[in-house]
Amino acid sequence: MAKDKKLVEQITSRDVDFAQWYTDVCLKADLIDYTSVKGCMVIKPAGYAIWENCKNDLDQRFKATGVENCYMPELIPESLLAKEGELVNGFAPECAWVTVGGNEQLQERLALRPTSETLFSDFYHNDVHSYRDLPRLYNQWCSVMRWEKTTRPFLRSREFLWQEGHTVHATAQEAVERTEMMLNIYADFLEKDMAIPVIKGRKTEKEKFAGAEATYTVEALMYDGQALQSGTSHYFGDKFAKAYDIEFTDKDNIVKYCHQTSWGMTTRIIGAMIMVHGDDSGLVIPPRIAPTQVMVIPIQQRREGVLEKAQEILSALKAAGLRAKIDDTDKGPGYKFAEQEMRGIPARIEIGPKDIANGTAVVVRRDNREKSEVLIDQLPEKVKEILAAEQTEMFERAKKRRDEHTYAAHNPEEMKECSENRHGFVKAMWCGSRECEEKIKEVYGFSSRCIPFEQEQLSDVCVCCGKPAKKMVYWGRAY
Amino acid sequence: MAKDKKLVEQITSRDVDFAQWYTDVCLKADLIDYTSVKGCMVIKPAGYAIWENCKNDLDQRFKATGVENCYMPELIPESLLAKEGELVNGFAPECAWVTVGGNEQLQERLALRPTSETLFSDFYHNDVHSYRDLPRLYNQWCSVMRWEKTTRPFLRSREFLWQEGHTVHATAQEAVERTEMMLNIYADFLEKDMAIPVIKGRKTEKEKFAGAEATYTVEALMYDGQALQSGTSHYFGDKFAKAYDIEFTDKDNIVKYCHQTSWGMTTRIIGAMIMVHGDDSGLVIPPRIAPTQVMVIPIQQRREGVLEKAQEILSALKAAGLRAKIDDTDKGPGYKFAEQEMRGIPARIEIGPKDIANGTAVVVRRDNREKSEVLIDQLPEKVKEILAAEQTEMFERAKKRRDEHTYAAHNPEEMKECSENRHGFVKAMWCGSRECEEKIKEVYGFSSRCIPFEQEQLSDVCVCCGKPAKKMVYWGRAY
Repeated sequence: MAKDKKLVEQITSRDVDFAQWYTDVCLKADLIDYTSVKGCMVIKPAGYAIWENCKNDLDQRFKATGVENCYMPELIPESLLAKEGELVNGFAPECAWVTVGGNEQLQERLALRPTSETLFSDFYHNDVHSYRDLPRLYNQWCSVMRWEKTTRPFLRSREFLWQEGHTVHATAQEAVERTEMMLNIYADFLEKDMAIPVIKGRKTEKEKFAGAEATYTVEALMYDGQALQSGTSHYFGDKFAKAYDIEFTDKDNIVKYCHQTSWGMTTRIIGAMIMVHGDDSGLVIPPRIAPTQVMVIPIQQRREGVLEKAQEILSALKAAGLRAKIDDTDKGPGYKFAEQEMRGIPARIEIGPKDIANGTAVVVRRDNREKSEVLIDQLPEKVKEILAAEQTEMFERAKKRRDEHTYAAHNPEEMKECSENRHGFVKAMWCGSRECEEKIKEVYGFSSRCIPFEQEQLSDVCVCCGKPAKKMVYWGRAY
Repeated sequence: MAKDKKLVEQITSRDVDFAQWYTDVCLKADLIDYTSVKGCMVIKPAGYAIWENCKNDLDQRFKATGVENCYMPELIPESLLAKEGELVNGFAPECAWVTVGGNEQLQERLALRPTSETLFSDFYHNDVHSYRDLPRLYNQWCSVMRWEKTTRPFLRSREFLWQEGHTVHATAQEAVERTEMMLNIYADFLEKDMAIPVIKGRKTEKEKFAGAEATYTVEALMYDGQALQSGTSHYFGDKFAKAYDIEFTDKDNIVKYCHQTSWGMTTRIIGAMIMVHGDDSGLVIPPRIAPTQVMVIPIQQRREGVLEKAQEILSALKAAGLRAKIDDTDKGPGYKFAEQEMRGIPARIEIGPKDIANGTAVVVRRDNREKSEVLIDQLPEKVKEILAAEQTEMFERAKKRRDEHTYAAHNPEEMKECSENRHGFVKAMWCGSRECEEKIKEVYGFSSRCIPFEQEQLSDVCVCCGKPAKKMVYWGRAY
C-alpha cells in the first residue's frame, strides 16, 4: 500500500494550496505536459479525450440549430485585423506575428488568429449579397494564439483550442436571438453535461468583448471561490458590417447592413471541470463527459477465472453502451484504485474470487466513494443508474456549494467583509457607472462578472456610491 | 432553362483545360474561397463537411487499432526543429516563422508546425521510460503550414488540415508492422470510402520523407493522367530516438532506443476526389463520404400536396439513416438539378404532381445520370441500393480508367513514347540508382511514384541504363 499512498501524496491538498493542487492534478491525471514554449502545452490523450467529448456534444447541439462548420485560415494580415478599431486595440498587443515565410521577410506581418471576426467578416463581405444568403450560421473548431504574460494550463495558455461561431443575419432581432440561443446552449451544456452550475448574464461595458455591442456570459464558481468565465456570446450589431462592408439586398430591394454575432467556448472548461469537481485524490469527471466511465479492476487476477469474469463484465458493460475499460496490468489493486481515482474515472468495479463466488461485484463511485454490491448480471443496468445518480449529485453538490458561497452586500461595509473574509460570488447593486466599477476593483479586488438575467432588488442604491442603483451585478475575483 | 445552362457553363470542360476545370469546380461547388493570404483558403461548409466525414471515418479506423488522439503545440522552437539534421534540412526552407510575440521580439524564432516529429519526439523523451510505457500510439488532427511558392486549393496550399500519427515502439518489427498497418488503412479508406483505386508501394531513397528510414505511399491516378500521392506512412527506425534521446528500459533490464513511425493524410484527398470523379457538370462525391447523399427536389412545388409529399419522403429517407435534404427554395427545378449536380450530391429524387398520382418518384444518380422510377414507399430501400451501386461502380470506373492509363515501358523508346503521347502511370524496371532516377525525370519528365508492393518482372534490365534491374517502379507526372 506504500505505493498507492505515494501516488496520492504526489498531489497537494486543495485546501492547503489550491494553485499547486490544480497543477498537480493536471500533471498527475495525465491531462497535459509542458513544452519548451511557454504557455503552449501538450494535451495528452486523457485530456484530449475529454475535449473530444465536449466537442462532439457541443457540435451536435450547434448543428441541431442549423450551424455549419467551416475552416478559416490561421493567418490574418495586419491591415485586415486593423479594419475594426476596437478589435485591433483589444487584440493587437497580444498577437503572435509571422514575419518570415520560407526564407523571405514578409512585406506585411501576419497575426496568428487570436479570434476570427475579421476573417469571417472579410469572407462574408464577398459571400453575402441577398436576403436569400442569410442567415449564415458558421462555426469553426481550431486553435488560437494570444501572447499572455502569465500562463496556466487550460485556464490561460498562449495557445488554446476552441470553437468560434460567427453568424450573419438580416435583422438585429434575429442576431440578438442567436446570441441568446448560443448562450443558452453553453449554459445547458455546462449544467447538464459538465455538472457545472452557471450564472447567465450580460457583461458590463467595461468587461465586454472588444468591438461587441453586447457580450453575454456564463460564469461559474470554482472550489476556491474564484469565478471563471466559461463561455461568451457576442452581439455585434452592424459594427463589423460597416467596417468590412457586409451588405445585402433585402426583400424590399433596399441595400442594408447585416447584423452579426460570435460565440466561443474553449479548453478552459476543462480547467473549470477540474476546479469544480476535483478533490484531494485527483480529478473527478462527470459521467456524461468521461472518456472512460467505468474501470473494471480484477482483484487477485492470477486466480483462476478472475480475469475471464472481469473480461465478461467488460464486454457486458460495453454491449450496454457504457464506455468501459479493464485494468489488467500487473500493478496491485490499491495502486489501480488510486490511479482510477486520480484520473477521475466516475466508477470502478472491483471483482475478485470472493465476489465471483457470491455472484456479485462491488461498484465504487468516484465522487463520494459510495460502494454498492451488485449482482454480476445486473451490472450494466445498475452501473447506468449509479452514473446517472453521480451526474445529478455532482451538479447538485456544486450548486449547493456555489449558492453557499454567494453573498449579498448591501453597503460598503458588507463589501469589505466579503472582500476580506468570504470566497465566492458577491451580489451587489450598481449605479451603472464605470467609475464605481473601477473603484470596486481597486478597493475590494472584485471585477464585475455579469449583470445576471435573473435580477434581484437587494436595495435601491449602488453599493459603492450610494446613488440610485440600476442593476444587480455579480462580483468576484476571477481567473 | 437559360439559368441552368448558365450554371453549368460557368465551369470549363475538363478535357479543354483541366486545371481551370479544377479551380472552377472548387469554387462553383462551394468548396472553398480564396483569402488575402496566398495559399491560405477558406474551406466553406460544403468542403469542410466532406473533410469531417473523412475525419470521422479515419478516426474510427485509427481508434480501432488502439490509436489515441492528443494535441501538440503549433509552435516549434528553431533549436528543437534542428535536432534531427535531415528533417530540418527538408522543412526549414519552407517554414513560416513567428518572430514577435505581443510587442516583443522573441529571443528564438518559432516555426509554425510543418510536421510534428520533433515535438512528439521531445515529448516522448520525457514520457517513455519503461517497456510498460510502450507502444505509444498517438495521433493529432490539426493544421500545418508550409510556405509553398505555387499553390492550388487542396493540392498544394500553405496551410492545410491533416492528421499526423506518431507512434513509438519497443522493437523495429513492431514499428514496421504499424507503418504497414496504417498504409493499409489509408488504402482501404481511399478504395472503399472515397472510391479511389490506389497503388501501394515504397518511395525510393530520393523521394522518401526527410529523416525516414522508409516511406510507404498510396498513389492514385487523376483524370488527366497525373499522379497524386494520397497518404504516406513512415518508418524512422531509431533515428529520431537517437537525436532526441528516447530510451526505455526493456524487460531484460537493458536500456534501448525506441523505434518510431509517423503517418499522415491531408485535405489533399478532397483534391483527389474532385480529380478522379468530377465531370463537366461539377463535383461527384462518393455516397459513403457525401455530407448529403440525396436531395429531394419537388417539381411544381406550389401545386397542392407536392411539398407535403416531398417532406414525407425526406422524413422517410432520414428515418432510414440516409443523409437527405430537400431543396424547397423558389428556384426552378432545372436550376436545382444543376446545383445538385454541381455540388456532387450522389442522387436526387424528383417528385411532382404526376409522380404523386402514380405513387412513384424518379431517382437520378449523379455519376451516370441513370434514372429509376421507384414506388414512393420503397424509396428508402431503393435509394440505399442505388447509392451502394453508385459507390461500387464509381470505384470500378476509376479503376478501369486507371488500368487503361497504366502503361509498361521496356526500353528508352517506349519511355519516350509514353512521355510524349500517354497520360498516366508508366511501369518500368529500374536498376536502383539515383542517377537513372534523376535522368528519367530530366529526359522524360517522370518522377518515381513508388516501388509497388506487387512487383511484376517486365524485363531484366533497367529502362534507363540497361544494367540489371532491381525493381519495377511506377513512374509519372505528379501533383
